[in-house]
Amino acid sequence: MSLKQTTQLPSRDIPLPPTVSAEMRELMRASQPASLRNPPNTVSEWAVVVTALAQQGAARAPQLMQRFNVRVDRVEIAGVPAFDVVPDDARPGDRRRLMHIHGGCYVLNPGEAGLAEAILMAGFGKYSVLSVDYRMPPAAYFPAAHDDVAAVWTRLASQGDPKAMGVFGTSAGGALTLALAQRARRENLPLPAALAIGTPMADTTKTGDTFYTNEGLDNVLLSRDGFCDAATRLYANGHDLADPRLSPIYGAFEGLPPTILTSGTRDLLLSNTVRVHRKLRQAGVEAVLQVFEGLAHAQYLFDENAPETKEVFDEIVLFFDRHLAR
Amino acid sequence: MSLKQTTQLPSRDIPLPPTVSAEMRELMRASQPASLRNPPNTVSEWAVVVTALAQQGAARAPQLMQRFNVRVDRVEIAGVPAFDVVPDDARPGDRRRLMHIHGGCYVLNPGEAGLAEAILMAGFGKYSVLSVDYRMPPAAYFPAAHDDVAAVWTRLASQGDPKAMGVFGTSAGGALTLALAQRARRENLPLPAALAIGTPMADTTKTGDTFYTNEGLDNVLLSRDGFCDAATRLYANGHDLADPRLSPIYGAFEGLPPTILTSGTRDLLLSNTVRVHRKLRQAGVEAVLQVFEGLAHAQYLFDENAPETKEVFDEIVLFFDRHLAR
Repeated sequence: MSLKQTTQLPSRDIPLPPTVSAEMRELMRASQPASLRNPPNTVSEWAVVVTALAQQGAARAPQLMQRFNVRVDRVEIAGVPAFDVVPDDARPGDRRRLMHIHGGCYVLNPGEAGLAEAILMAGFGKYSVLSVDYRMPPAAYFPAAHDDVAAVWTRLASQGDPKAMGVFGTSAGGALTLALAQRARRENLPLPAALAIGTPMADTTKTGDTFYTNEGLDNVLLSRDGFCDAATRLYANGHDLADPRLSPIYGAFEGLPPTILTSGTRDLLLSNTVRVHRKLRQAGVEAVLQVFEGLAHAQYLFDENAPETKEVFDEIVLFFDRHLAR
Repeated sequence: MSLKQTTQLPSRDIPLPPTVSAEMRELMRASQPASLRNPPNTVSEWAVVVTALAQQGAARAPQLMQRFNVRVDRVEIAGVPAFDVVPDDARPGDRRRLMHIHGGCYVLNPGEAGLAEAILMAGFGKYSVLSVDYRMPPAAYFPAAHDDVAAVWTRLASQGDPKAMGVFGTSAGGALTLALAQRARRENLPLPAALAIGTPMADTTKTGDTFYTNEGLDNVLLSRDGFCDAATRLYANGHDLADPRLSPIYGAFEGLPPTILTSGTRDLLLSNTVRVHRKLRQAGVEAVLQVFEGLAHAQYLFDENAPETKEVFDEIVLFFDRHLAR
């Protein structure tokens, strides 16, 4: 028996798996743009990248609205800009409501560019969704996004029955969702009835096995030292990344609401996801894990026609349906 | 956007993760013996390897029995040798019973060598367990193991209330568990109330992304072309590996019992596991997935003192407790 500190892997060619849909295979073959493969170094360089990508992202919103028959209205709540995302065929009299926190490494996806996940949820689930357009660099730094999300949640919860409300988000949005629930417990704010957390940036200290094992396999995040890490550092603005607000894996899990977690086998944050799942279960929280074959980070958000996308959202909707009071 | 058919990964050194227990880290550092790294080519070479490893495996059984206060008796049921595995502090009057199907690629772990998982379940769960010592090469080939398992289950179910019974197993035992449930549906045999399937050999055609992505990272199975594949071919004896009995991922999932599935992020069969989870969910079956940080194939069976081991079994016990009639 040899005692190794590392596992040496030779160079390899990993084939595209035949076990994912044709739509997902196309996403797995795509490359990130050069601006993310070689991430910006300065705030002004970031601003250029954010703006360019946000234009692309925002262009998808009206397509999704049309496809899913969803209406979007700009609103302001607790002084924070947000979007009301409402399906045309919302069930009348349904008091259930979801709050959406978009992803994008705390820097990407301002405005309409952050709406895709909210529209998919409103479309697949027929839920009325409030999507928070929280502050990001260079307008504001940590803990601005966290505070915006908490302010919106507090107001939203006061306008109805938090037992009929859920919160969801992916990546940074998943981490913000978890951090919000932990803060609600800590500060005795109302708790949502359920959470849906997609592949959360729950440990921004790059701790977790799949930061290494899935490096280069995840064609969205690419590397633990890539654009998402750089963007997160920009938002953190010198603050310790091990702070549970920036790495909620180090926060408290007792008494959190029932949670459904989503990841994929090529996800750089698969370890983040399963570690959060274990922490919730260790704390006695009802927690459901779904891991999709072959999927990289958040890839279920990028093609509304992929059967995996429908499957992810159908499971989340089922979970919210089970836990939200009517 | 480049359209790639493969993902090229450079050679890499993957560190041991700090996010697993010290016990699990030791297991992650271990190497398989040379007899499995360079698998046998002939039936007689296999017999030598099986015997040597079975002696080691059997030596662990009395240690586990003592540690968990579990009694083991040889029995025969429906003409098949088996073991009654009963905790000293079994709840009196408890009619619930579990059937265990050991793993070992259809070739390894004859006799007492196949008992570890059964003793762990009896110890952690206080369940009375019947562990099937099914026929393996060179004594018998496909479908002997499948038939033995079905014969034992049919008899066991006739001796009590199948609604108070569960079936569990890992690796080949997980595949045999799934194949048994599919056969029970097909042949109108009684169904168990719940299944616990650990990292199943559900697709022996080597289809599934983690057969490639986790190659060399999984220090138990090592490679899709390693000893487990060779052993499975020995058992299959020329039979088509895509037959749903040998690859139950291609079988029918409708109407199967509630199932809990276990895997790890370094598991070569992580894709097998999550694909079975999705198939069950697509068929509307209640199915719970747990994936453990860093764990290779079935590694939760190899150190009874690892906290991950207790966590795996505690979750399975909770699942059986919820689904088995009392």
